[in-house]
Amino acid sequence: MKRTILVVGIGAGNPEHITVQAINALNCADLLFIPDKGASKADLADLRRDIVERYVTNPQTKMLDYAVPVRDMATPDYGRSVDDWHDALASRFGSLLDALPESGTGAFLVWGDPGLYDSTIRILDRLRQTHDFAIKIIPGITSIQALTAAHGIALNRIGEPVHITTGRRLESTKADTIVMLDGQLAFRNADPGLEIFWGAYLGTPDEIIISGRLGDVAERIVETRQAARERHGWIMDTYLLRKPG
Amino acid sequence: MKRTILVVGIGAGNPEHITVQAINALNCADLLFIPDKGASKADLADLRRDIVERYVTNPQTKMLDYAVPVRDMATPDYGRSVDDWHDALASRFGSLLDALPESGTGAFLVWGDPGLYDSTIRILDRLRQTHDFAIKIIPGITSIQALTAAHGIALNRIGEPVHITTGRRLESTKADTIVMLDGQLAFRNADPGLEIFWGAYLGTPDEIIISGRLGDVAERIVETRQAARERHGWIMDTYLLRKPG
Repeated sequence: MKRTILVVGIGAGNPEHITVQAINALNCADLLFIPDKGASKADLADLRRDIVERYVTNPQTKMLDYAVPVRDMATPDYGRSVDDWHDALASRFGSLLDALPESGTGAFLVWGDPGLYDSTIRILDRLRQTHDFAIKIIPGITSIQALTAAHGIALNRIGEPVHITTGRRLESTKADTIVMLDGQLAFRNADPGLEIFWGAYLGTPDEIIISGRLGDVAERIVETRQAARERHGWIMDTYLLRKPG
Repeated sequence: MKRTILVVGIGAGNPEHITVQAINALNCADLLFIPDKGASKADLADLRRDIVERYVTNPQTKMLDYAVPVRDMATPDYGRSVDDWHDALASRFGSLLDALPESGTGAFLVWGDPGLYDSTIRILDRLRQTHDFAIKIIPGITSIQALTAAHGIALNRIGEPVHITTGRRLESTKADTIVMLDGQLAFRNADPGLEIFWGAYLGTPDEIIISGRLGDVAERIVETRQAARERHGWIMDTYLLRKPG
């Protein structure tokens, strides 16, 4: 029997976002791989530990901490810096795999859904070139779903498309657009006549949401985001842009 | 105190897709509104009842069945036929609301996530013109997440956008595209050089997935889909189209 790696979506921040499938998966694991991303993201790590304490009842299931390699932000070539970083991560994941008993099961706990703007699956694919193991993916609630639930809106208009992109790629907004990973605050350059539905720390007690005409609320979002980021040491936010009406 | 309506996402078909938040929400409700969509979708209704039986432990929580008005497919104007149908649904939802005790709580159980290609939120917005009540939305696992988990793939490429649309609107595929609600099998008209990741009855024991070069597998998907639809009396499927490599 091969070793098995579970990639388990644990939701967008609310510990109650976890699914019954995810709880059962975590309780099947010998080892839960817990990343240490440094002090600035300590409350995220605490939230992950809180989830483990609440839901993992199998006494055989242990936690294994590991240090996460840091991406070289100084490299001017984005694709290259991500590629190098993924190599370093694949090598780290290889040692986690080696820590498992033969035919044992390890689990990564991934914020949101493992398929949406998360690199775990891709890094495990890279590791497959050198290691033989099975992968099972458990879906999780994403920040997109937490965003629309918090605003009480549907993501799409009737029969209309939705575009999901990153701040880096937010050039034009032809369709209703969800923007993830926007460190550049790209919404400041979008059409001020658009409606924005913005949210940060979605699903957590620190959740903040702001909506309105982009031209009217953009500055308030920038200031709120900046203040919250200083207070927490980190921020995770996402937003929907759409034509009004 | 106003009455409260909970719109609860219950996942894409696997009863274990349900979240702890959804379980707690269902157990807060006085009434669970259970749609009757006729014999052809009886196994979907059974699945919904199975979820209630598994997870609802509050003896005060009762089920209330209601007949779902049918959309007039003969009306040539799509927008108009949806509009009329939503009016009929809003009126039906009004009588469900009236069945609640004062300051009571009712819950709709919605497949997938209430924000993604589901009309419940929109119909409740319509009902707000005549009734005063609070709405709370509980996110759920969508068929998109079930699809990528089943195929063991990430939805997006590194830093790249994803487009979500319907079969009706699948004109061109500039970005990687998720297609929902494709009764027309629009993928038959897409570039045969694209890769397709297709899935039906995702998350259920009847799950079927097919992937490959579109030109190679399109016919197999059409035949598989047709046979499965005849066997079950209904089908729910979705797929991802993307350029290979």
